[in-house]
Amino acid sequence: MDFQNCFPVWNKLTAPQQERIHGALMTRKVGKGTVIHNGSMDCTGLLLVKSGLLRAYILSDEGREITIYRLFDLDMCLFSASCMLRSIQFEVTIEAEKDTELWIIPAETYKSIMEESAPLSNYTNELMATRFSDVMWLVEQIMWKSLDKRVAAFLLEERSIQGSDKLKITHETIANHLGSHREVITRMLRYFQNEGIVKLSRGMVEVVAPQKLESLTVD
Amino acid sequence: MDFQNCFPVWNKLTAPQQERIHGALMTRKVGKGTVIHNGSMDCTGLLLVKSGLLRAYILSDEGREITIYRLFDLDMCLFSASCMLRSIQFEVTIEAEKDTELWIIPAETYKSIMEESAPLSNYTNELMATRFSDVMWLVEQIMWKSLDKRVAAFLLEERSIQGSDKLKITHETIANHLGSHREVITRMLRYFQNEGIVKLSRGMVEVVAPQKLESLTVD
Repeated sequence: MDFQNCFPVWNKLTAPQQERIHGALMTRKVGKGTVIHNGSMDCTGLLLVKSGLLRAYILSDEGREITIYRLFDLDMCLFSASCMLRSIQFEVTIEAEKDTELWIIPAETYKSIMEESAPLSNYTNELMATRFSDVMWLVEQIMWKSLDKRVAAFLLEERSIQGSDKLKITHETIANHLGSHREVITRMLRYFQNEGIVKLSRGMVEVVAPQKLESLTVD
Repeated sequence: MDFQNCFPVWNKLTAPQQERIHGALMTRKVGKGTVIHNGSMDCTGLLLVKSGLLRAYILSDEGREITIYRLFDLDMCLFSASCMLRSIQFEVTIEAEKDTELWIIPAETYKSIMEESAPLSNYTNELMATRFSDVMWLVEQIMWKSLDKRVAAFLLEERSIQGSDKLKITHETIANHLGSHREVITRMLRYFQNEGIVKLSRGMVEVVAPQKLESLTVD
């Protein structure tokens, strides 16, 4: 799998621009759980996921987390290069949820090409609009959806990511994705268990009635 | 006040691009309360506020509202032209909070110039990053701040917008800004009144101890 086949506007760049990217491009393999980017403290560069899974989340002063989006194969991460756009005034942490292979374009390389290339800049616009839509979806979830619906939607998402009904995940991790507390999630999962929707065991949530989860997520 | 002096990247556009904008540019005066843009149903165009105040908000299925940002003099509104970026997958309503004068650049004009102009596209990126930061601030407020802090911050913002301690605003309106219910806001304001922070009367919230509001907003 070559970078140029995975980078959407590659063919709209000039040959010298392509060379600059090739000259600066790095690859990196990170293990599950690695924090790749930490708030505004570093400006890692643009990340393109070759394979694996990344999670972008924000942290409260008290250390609570909420996932704002997840990045899958061939997704691109802009906010790991937030120094590139001075109007980005928030801090996102990026962590590998699975073993992940990445391409990294250094921020200054990307930025200097974006300043002269309308195609790259327009692509960046679309990328930001996509993440913006993810965050607006999150706002709507937090504001208008009750927690049972949010937990149900999360379990269905995990089921499709893990490709199994037996989800290896702790209540703490679910709480961190949803910006909730472990105790609250445990109570909700026990309620789901009583309703015959899931089966709980140590470090595991087994989905036994996915159709009941589905019907919870629709109003 | 001329458009070209108010539009930040005007001098970075070519003469033909400037002419295309001039030829398509419209001005519009709207009264307080006018809905200028309504979700994805119309694609009004890019708005530049000449003078006045706009509010961008989202609506739940049940008709609840939450303000996502406000636009002041010389602010530009991108999401009134959401048709321009296909990755924008959410619906925003834009309403005049004061009598407002606007310039409107039709979406297709803006889009066609943005596709060829790196400066305009990069400016659009910065604009979107600014709104993105507003929404991330909102997520943090909703997730980590209690309602008393949010009401306090809102009253201080209104005080600076209205330039007065006597805020002409209903409890319903405050609820709509904050995505809350009128009854909840009324209870909070009565608590503030008991604490000697505000004085309530019909259609009016008078801030009597702004320093107490300030100290509420810091943790």
